[in-house]
Amino acid sequence: MSSATTQATDRVYNFSPGPAVMPLSVLEQIQKDLVALPGSGASILEISHRGKPFLAILEDAKRRLRDLLRIPSNYHILFLQGGARLQFSMVPMNLLRGASAPASYVLTGSWGIKALEEARREGPTHVAWDGRDTAYDGVPAWTGVPIPSDAAYVHMTSNETIEGVQFRDAPPAGLPPVVCDCSSDFLSRPIPVDRYALLYACAQKNAGPAGVTIVIVRDDLLERCGDSLPGYLNYRNHVEEDSLYNTPATFGIYVFGLIARWLEEEVGGLDAMRLRNERKARMVYDAIDESRGFYRGHARPEHRSAMNATFRLPDESREKAFLGEAEKIGLCSLKGHRSVGGIRASIYNAMPDEGVEQLCGFMRGFARRHGGGA
Amino acid sequence: MSSATTQATDRVYNFSPGPAVMPLSVLEQIQKDLVALPGSGASILEISHRGKPFLAILEDAKRRLRDLLRIPSNYHILFLQGGARLQFSMVPMNLLRGASAPASYVLTGSWGIKALEEARREGPTHVAWDGRDTAYDGVPAWTGVPIPSDAAYVHMTSNETIEGVQFRDAPPAGLPPVVCDCSSDFLSRPIPVDRYALLYACAQKNAGPAGVTIVIVRDDLLERCGDSLPGYLNYRNHVEEDSLYNTPATFGIYVFGLIARWLEEEVGGLDAMRLRNERKARMVYDAIDESRGFYRGHARPEHRSAMNATFRLPDESREKAFLGEAEKIGLCSLKGHRSVGGIRASIYNAMPDEGVEQLCGFMRGFARRHGGGA
Repeated sequence: MSSATTQATDRVYNFSPGPAVMPLSVLEQIQKDLVALPGSGASILEISHRGKPFLAILEDAKRRLRDLLRIPSNYHILFLQGGARLQFSMVPMNLLRGASAPASYVLTGSWGIKALEEARREGPTHVAWDGRDTAYDGVPAWTGVPIPSDAAYVHMTSNETIEGVQFRDAPPAGLPPVVCDCSSDFLSRPIPVDRYALLYACAQKNAGPAGVTIVIVRDDLLERCGDSLPGYLNYRNHVEEDSLYNTPATFGIYVFGLIARWLEEEVGGLDAMRLRNERKARMVYDAIDESRGFYRGHARPEHRSAMNATFRLPDESREKAFLGEAEKIGLCSLKGHRSVGGIRASIYNAMPDEGVEQLCGFMRGFARRHGGGA
Repeated sequence: MSSATTQATDRVYNFSPGPAVMPLSVLEQIQKDLVALPGSGASILEISHRGKPFLAILEDAKRRLRDLLRIPSNYHILFLQGGARLQFSMVPMNLLRGASAPASYVLTGSWGIKALEEARREGPTHVAWDGRDTAYDGVPAWTGVPIPSDAAYVHMTSNETIEGVQFRDAPPAGLPPVVCDCSSDFLSRPIPVDRYALLYACAQKNAGPAGVTIVIVRDDLLERCGDSLPGYLNYRNHVEEDSLYNTPATFGIYVFGLIARWLEEEVGGLDAMRLRNERKARMVYDAIDESRGFYRGHARPEHRSAMNATFRLPDESREKAFLGEAEKIGLCSLKGHRSVGGIRASIYNAMPDEGVEQLCGFMRGFARRHGGGA
């Protein structure tokens, strides 16, 4: 790149909860081909979604995702728009309208609550578990969740970004169809896809830019999608047209494919990704636990998220100082969600070890300087 | 750019109907800053939609659009997802549910028909005008369209991409609220915004990459948006949250802003853009008209689209040869929509004069070589 091109060295460590850090090699690949995608003579931003170059990109993205997650052949992969927020409505519109029993929601944080709000507009609902009494500081053991055996579906959120709590284990086999919002831990580790009936994830944490939503849906669920649904909101239309029911977010799908390739070829797959993520998360939580109470994690230790570490300082004035000093040394977007406050370090797949090491070093130094322990 | 960067010289002339050609200077700007947006230390693909750098981008994009179209202050600008296809449903969900009179649709081509199909799921509809009997080769004079005075709204498509027909004039004042799908001629010319109650456009023709949909809605219409609507589908939510009801397509909004800047600063505004578009369209239609019937335009001359020129050759074998020879010299994506066949040259804002000149030269030569007139 010439000196006129903004350089990788201009980059900070970005702990944003989403849109979030991406692999540098992916960004450099996008940059390189931005004006003309090799072989197509036009930018990825310009090419038709029905032309051969894009269809090859779409197929490649689907194949890589199927390989990474070992998705069985009776599941469809869709690339939609509207974010998880639109899925909050599409799920009940497709799976709850006309159902004889309620949809059962497991509430482990803010996003699950919002999903339930939308389901209530569409049909009968049931709350199987609600972590409200302990401020959503953990997730339940599946054996302790009373799910009606005839529930239209069970809805869960595998990782709650705002509270920083995460399910360690997949739900057991034998439940009613499980629908999982896995927006913020998608592709961070292997999961047994066959335990779920439908998985959805907005891309902007681990899987691409904002504006693409990935849905993985088991074939038999499509029978429930009613003909009276608005066309765009009917999963069946997207399955029948292979994500080309209308013009999809072509650029986002292209970036998703590059990230899937990075996961396969540079990281070495989802087992390797999980180990890397666990190591990074342990570093942050160790810095919290070794601070003798200067940093107080929100989640109970056994339910801590490997993606979003949420914690408080002794008071808000030191939280403000923490954010200000961190920003000055290039550790950015560490502010907790406005609904809960405090600090949140989002350490998604693409956050390099060095970023976490710098954060932890800063945390230890800040605690020393500002009256904490160690 | 170093030699490792894919060059502008690798580019063809891309006549795709959308996603479509973009200004080269915009693509080069995106490329330059892709890895790190100056001042933010991260890629536009990575920055939070709630951080200052993106909020400045969002404000800038809105301000430029308001200036370009001279949008009155009682209209809101929204950046949504889901394409025009989702607007086909959102419009009647928001404006027709609970209305006492039907929505009235003016059908001038394929997209208007699809919009009507979705409206029919939501409430009573009425067809004010239908061009079917002449294969959608033109648009009506507004004086000849019997619109019920109490219609919930009137829906029109300002430019039909597939058939290549376009309204020259805005609807007159005094109609029921006019909703216009202007996806394929948005920002191609000035329009009197105050003649419309709601305008919507997917970005991937003249205004950005696929995955952003621009909605311009008059304030008083929001009173109709029912509280029972799914959250994402309620215009009111997006207005109240200033397009940040959920994570928007941040990259697409950024690109939209760059294109708006290009229109302002390089083109010189929408009057200049209209002149440029009219000149390009005249070149193509002259090549058709001078071919002594070798090329037959689909639209009646007075209703021809300045954006999409659709025409046939004497037979399908010559159409195939036309497409093949054109492609070989870098004139790409000229195939007509699969539903109508033939040739379609989409000559949106960003198609340079030279591209159109090369196309017209090729058309004349092809007609000579393959038995046409001239």
